Amino acid sequence: MDDFFNVLQIEELTDILQKVPCLEKEELELEHCRGRYLASDVTAPEDLPATNRSCMDGYAVKAADTFGASENNPAYLEKIKDLGICDIPDFAMTPESCAGVVTGGVLPQGSDAVVMQEYTHEMGAGTIEIRRPVAPWENVMFRGEDVTRGDTAIATGQRAGFRHTAMMAALGIKSWLFYKTPGVGIISTGDELMEISSPMQAGRIRDVNSHALAHLVRGCNAEPRLFGIIRDREADLKKALETALETSDVLLISGGSSVGQRDFTLKAMQAIEGLEILAHGLAISPGKPTIFARINNKYVWGLPGQVGSAQVVMLVLVLPFLNHLQGAQHAFNEDETGLVQARLTRNLASRYGRKDYVRVRLGEDEQGFTATPVLGKSGLLKTVFQADGLIWIPSNYEGLARGEKVKVRILP
Amino acid sequence: MDDFFNVLQIEELTDILQKVPCLEKEELELEHCRGRYLASDVTAPEDLPATNRSCMDGYAVKAADTFGASENNPAYLEKIKDLGICDIPDFAMTPESCAGVVTGGVLPQGSDAVVMQEYTHEMGAGTIEIRRPVAPWENVMFRGEDVTRGDTAIATGQRAGFRHTAMMAALGIKSWLFYKTPGVGIISTGDELMEISSPMQAGRIRDVNSHALAHLVRGCNAEPRLFGIIRDREADLKKALETALETSDVLLISGGSSVGQRDFTLKAMQAIEGLEILAHGLAISPGKPTIFARINNKYVWGLPGQVGSAQVVMLVLVLPFLNHLQGAQHAFNEDETGLVQARLTRNLASRYGRKDYVRVRLGEDEQGFTATPVLGKSGLLKTVFQADGLIWIPSNYEGLARGEKVKVRILP
Repeated sequence: MDDFFNVLQIEELTDILQKVPCLEKEELELEHCRGRYLASDVTAPEDLPATNRSCMDGYAVKAADTFGASENNPAYLEKIKDLGICDIPDFAMTPESCAGVVTGGVLPQGSDAVVMQEYTHEMGAGTIEIRRPVAPWENVMFRGEDVTRGDTAIATGQRAGFRHTAMMAALGIKSWLFYKTPGVGIISTGDELMEISSPMQAGRIRDVNSHALAHLVRGCNAEPRLFGIIRDREADLKKALETALETSDVLLISGGSSVGQRDFTLKAMQAIEGLEILAHGLAISPGKPTIFARINNKYVWGLPGQVGSAQVVMLVLVLPFLNHLQGAQHAFNEDETGLVQARLTRNLASRYGRKDYVRVRLGEDEQGFTATPVLGKSGLLKTVFQADGLIWIPSNYEGLARGEKVKVRILP
Repeated sequence: MDDFFNVLQIEELTDILQKVPCLEKEELELEHCRGRYLASDVTAPEDLPATNRSCMDGYAVKAADTFGASENNPAYLEKIKDLGICDIPDFAMTPESCAGVVTGGVLPQGSDAVVMQEYTHEMGAGTIEIRRPVAPWENVMFRGEDVTRGDTAIATGQRAGFRHTAMMAALGIKSWLFYKTPGVGIISTGDELMEISSPMQAGRIRDVNSHALAHLVRGCNAEPRLFGIIRDREADLKKALETALETSDVLLISGGSSVGQRDFTLKAMQAIEGLEILAHGLAISPGKPTIFARINNKYVWGLPGQVGSAQVVMLVLVLPFLNHLQGAQHAFNEDETGLVQARLTRNLASRYGRKDYVRVRLGEDEQGFTATPVLGKSGLLKTVFQADGLIWIPSNYEGLARGEKVKVRILP
C-alpha cells in the first residue's frame, strides 16, 4: 500500500474531473425528465399568467371607486355582468361599475382591483354594496407576473424537480433538452468471487460489489450494465475492459486496484492502447487504491475491492462525477443543505495529510443528533450495514474530539 | 371555505391513514428492489463469513506461539504452506508453525490469529521470523461474525438501500418479497384547464397539476397514470372517477374539492355507490379543502386546485400514504434526519388551531442556514418556483418570531 508513486489529494482529482466535458444533449418529454439536468435555458415563450387574473372570488372594480368605503359608509357600484371562469369580458368598465369574477378569472378592461366576496353585498337590481376599499392592483395577478415572455424561466444545469415540471407545464413546454445520462459498465475482479446465485463454496465469497455499485449508479439516473466477474489475470481483465468500454461511457472495476501481487487492474489498463492513467492512489481513507483513467471520451474507475471502501469512493467521487457528466452544476461542491448536524460521541484519530471518511450511526439525545463511529474489522459487512451516515476528517486535522460538531451525510 | 362540516386535525386523518392495510407482496430481483420496502424478514440462510478468514496479508498462527515476540527477541515459526485466496487448507496447524495467508483467505484448522506481513521476515528454508505478538483472534473475521445462519439479517419494512442490497448479495439472495407499489390515477378538474400542448387561449390556463403531481408520485416508486382534464360537471366527474378507479389503487383529483359553486368533486364522489368520505376539510393551511375517501380497497384524494396547495397536501399526507401502502414503517412520523436546521428571517403569524405550512427560501450567513418565507399572491407559480423548503407552524402556536430555529424540509 505504500508503493503508490504519486498519491493525489482529493482536490487535485476533482480539479481533473471538473474539466471533463458533459455528455450530449437529448430531447425529453416532461414525464421522463425527473431528476435530469437541463441542457438549455428555458426561455418563456409567452407571459405567465397570460392576462390579468383575479386572485379571489368577488368583484372587479376600479380601485378609486372604493376609496373611503366602510361598513357605515359603503360604496354602491352597478354590476355590469357576472363573469365565469372561462369568460372573456367583452366590455370595458364604466365609472362606478363592477363585474363579478371568480378566482382565476380574467379581469375586464379598465378594472384594476378585486373586492373579496365577503366584503360585498348584492342589493338587488344589479347594485353591489362595497364595504371596504381596495388598493390599486389588490387581489390581482398581473399578466407576466410569474414570468414574462422572453425571460429565462429556468436556467441550464438545474435538476428537474417538482417546481421545474410545474413551470414547464404552465408554459406549455411538453419536452425540452436535457443532458444524456452515462451508460455505466461494472466489472468485479477476484479469483475468490462467485455469482450471487451460486451455492456457497469453501474459500469463496459472493460478488457483492457488482450489485451494490449498480444500486448507487441507479440512484443518479444512470443505467448500470453488469459485465460479471473477471479472474485475476491481466489478459482476461484487459479483454473484459475493452469489451465493456465499447458500450459504456464510464466503467467501474472493483478489486485489484492496489499494488499487491493480485492487483492486475492497473497493468491491464496500461496495456490498453490510448488509455491514460490520470490518478492512481488518493490521499483518502478508505479509498487510497483508487484509479482514474481516460480513453478517448470514456472514463475508467478502479475501485477498492472491499465494499465499504468502494462505497466511500462512489459517494465522494464517482457519483458526483456521474452527475457532472449529465450536466450538474457544482457536482463536486458538497451541497450542505442535505447534511445532518450531530455531535461526535467519541474521539477519532486521523492521519495528517489524508482525508479520512468514517461511517457513523446516528442517534438522538436531549441535545440533538449524535454520531457514533461504526468501527470494526475491515472486510466485515457488518460495519457497512450498521452505519447510517458518513463523516469526514479534513487532511489537515489529526482527529476529532468527542463532543465536536460534525456534518453527517446520510448514506443512500 | 367556512362551510366544511367537520374539519379534522391532521393527526386525526393520519390515524385513519395508518390503519389502511398495506398492498400485496411480490417477489423482486435484487436489481429492481431499490427504494422498495421488504415484506418479509430476511433470515440468513448461511453464516457470513462462511469460514474464519484473514483480515490481512500475513501469516496464520496460533497466537500463543507469538507471545513475547519482539524486534529483539523474535519468534521463529515453520511455514507449512502459502495459501492463495481460493485455497482450502488441507492441513491443521502443528506447534510453532504458520501458514502464509492473503486478505480474505481461509484460516487453517488450529490457527487463531494472523500476524501482518510487515511484522514478519522470511528467513529462507521455510522459517518465518515474527517480530510482534498477536492476541488470539487478532486480524481474523469469524465465521458468522456479520450474521449467523438463522438470524434476521434484515427486518420487514426496511427500505432497500445500498446496505440491504449488499447484505442480500452477500447472502446469495437473488430475489425477495417486497410490497407492491400502488397504481396512482390522476385527474384534473376545471373548465378553465387545457392540455399543456394547447396553444394559449384567452381566459384559460394549462393543466399544471397532472404533470406536477405525477412528478411527485414517481418519486415514491409509484407509477402515475394520467386521466386528463374533466370539466366542472358532476356527471362527467363521476364517470371519470369510476373509470379511473377500475385501474388505480389510489386516485388523486385536483380542483373542485372545496365547497364553492364550481366544486363538484365531493358531490361526484358521494354519487358513487359504496364510496365513503372519511375526511372533508383539514385544519391545515394551505390544504383545507382536502377530501379523503375509500371505496372497497381503493382510496381517493381530493386535492386543492392551486398547485402550491396541492404540493403541500402531497408532501405532508399523500406521499406518506403512498409509502405506507407499500410497507414503510412509521410513514407518517416525519424522519427528522433529513431536515435542515435554519433561523427564520422574519416574523410569521399563524392562526391558532390550524397547522400552517410555509414555503421558504434557504440562505446561509455566518451563523448557519437561514429560512426566508416566500410570500405572495395565492395562485402565482412564482412562490412555488422560488421556494427551496417547507416549514410548519404547529396548530397550538400563533406564529413564529424572527430568529427562531425552524426545521426545513427540502422540497423535492
